[in-house]
Amino acid sequence: MRKSSELIRFGVSMEKGLLAEFDSLAHGKGYANRSEAIRDMVRDLLIEKKLREENTEGVGTLTLVYNHHQRELEEKLTDYQHDHLQVIVSTVHVHLSQHLCLEVLILRGKTKEIRKVADGLIATKGVQHGKLVLTTAE
Amino acid sequence: MRKSSELIRFGVSMEKGLLAEFDSLAHGKGYANRSEAIRDMVRDLLIEKKLREENTEGVGTLTLVYNHHQRELEEKLTDYQHDHLQVIVSTVHVHLSQHLCLEVLILRGKTKEIRKVADGLIATKGVQHGKLVLTTAE
Amino acid sequence: MRKSSELIRFGVSMEKGLLAEFDSLAHGKGYANRSEAIRDMVRDLLIEKKLREENTEGVGTLTLVYNHHQRELEEKLTDYQHDHLQVIVSTVHVHLSQHLCLEVLILRGKTKEIRKVADGLIATKGVQHGKLVLTTAE
Amino acid sequence: MRKSSELIRFGVSMEKGLLAEFDSLAHGKGYANRSEAIRDMVRDLLIEKKLREENTEGVGTLTLVYNHHQRELEEKLTDYQHDHLQVIVSTVHVHLSQHLCLEVLILRGKTKEIRKVADGLIATKGVQHGKLVLTTAE
Repeated sequence: MRKSSELIRFGVSMEKGLLAEFDSLAHGKGYANRSEAIRDMVRDLLIEKKLREENTEGVGTLTLVYNHHQRELEEKLTDYQHDHLQVIVSTVHVHLSQHLCLEVLILRGKTKEIRKVADGLIATKGVQHGKLVLTTAE
Repeated sequence: MRKSSELIRFGVSMEKGLLAEFDSLAHGKGYANRSEAIRDMVRDLLIEKKLREENTEGVGTLTLVYNHHQRELEEKLTDYQHDHLQVIVSTVHVHLSQHLCLEVLILRGKTKEIRKVADGLIATKGVQHGKLVLTTAE
Repeated sequence: MRKSSELIRFGVSMEKGLLAEFDSLAHGKGYANRSEAIRDMVRDLLIEKKLREENTEGVGTLTLVYNHHQRELEEKLTDYQHDHLQVIVSTVHVHLSQHLCLEVLILRGKTKEIRKVADGLIATKGVQHGKLVLTTAE
Repeated sequence: MRKSSELIRFGVSMEKGLLAEFDSLAHGKGYANRSEAIRDMVRDLLIEKKLREENTEGVGTLTLVYNHHQRELEEKLTDYQHDHLQVIVSTVHVHLSQHLCLEVLILRGKTKEIRKVADGLIATKGVQHGKLVLTTAE
């Protein structure tokens, strides 16, 4: 067992009214207890900070919505992805409607490189909407 | 051809300096021309607005990072997903490290319902980090 | 003393490694102790949730950057503000450069009304940039 | 007249349906015409990009909500502000309720320095909530 995963218990003081509101929010979100909810907030804060550093190693999920009737779009997207094989881990495809496709790509590498590949795919003609989520792999 | 997808051309006026900066940014992101970059900004703005309405039909991509050594976590995640089959379209799994897994779920339904299912999965003990991206299916 | 402001102490368990990172982040931000940092995260989360409800009573800070050479802009901004006196609490003006002014408005009322007034000011010709921050007054 | 503020007119093509939705959104926000709405989106995008660079010269608006019953808080906030006079341009104070005060600070300097001062004020005990908005002074 890694030492850093050893559990430590510490005390937190909070106004009664604030605590009651927090309990209700955490319960509504499905948390089993306060510690779990607080750990999640702390991890989010740390990941946010790490992602602000330029050279972080990260994992990205890119969601693309595109119109598959757009001429040669699928070839272009596939070509582009093959040119960036080193950061693209996998791709899932979902048929949204008669016209629209959803493609979700999982990317891995330097966050700067991930952002660049995501920008390139989002900018492709026929891609209607794209959104990248970044996290760290640590 | 649907009438609403007919292309219309209109004029935009912009200060020379601002336009030069915009061209350089759009080029850096990989856009082939200004129209494509402007269409993307407009679509983003409209989707943001739609997602603020409570009853929108949407598509979500949920990225989860979890520790697969956590006792019974995978069973819990699988059970939870089966309880919400109607909104979960598909799931991809990636091995991040010896300890960490990445799971990406594609969800579809009322955005309120998608948010609820995502909250429940993120709140599960052992899930270290989760982030939901929403878009519309129109 | 209101009962809801009574301090309650409760225990939180966290992995040693995560706690060390959190301590370092909180210290870097200037927090005197963990409780204060955790209370701030909890309050942020609750305010975010409240602001998603349409009828919340809120306080807004609107930051505008505009070019004062723009013909009649200052008159327009002043007129607009007088038409919405009931939500505008006060205004500060800063000279940024030979051309640019910064105006910060404090607004108070229903968040929906605050957003509307802010949108109207941001949309005024000559206003180069505007950003609204909302919080609750409770 | 600076050359960079000369107006240039260029054409944009957009699907009829998307354009109608955009017109309705822009009109609802109070824009007099499409060009003004598009210029605002472009400026937002450029400012966002500039603010990601570490050494940008910026302007910040910091909104603080605090409880003035908190022992010695006002002295602490005033002391802290005097220690950072070089970045604090001005301060406005609003009485929110019997207990709560709103303080809005305008800051100017390197964005990194602005963030640091804002972090320090937000972390002060008794400050219940704080939010920083950054823009560029160019």
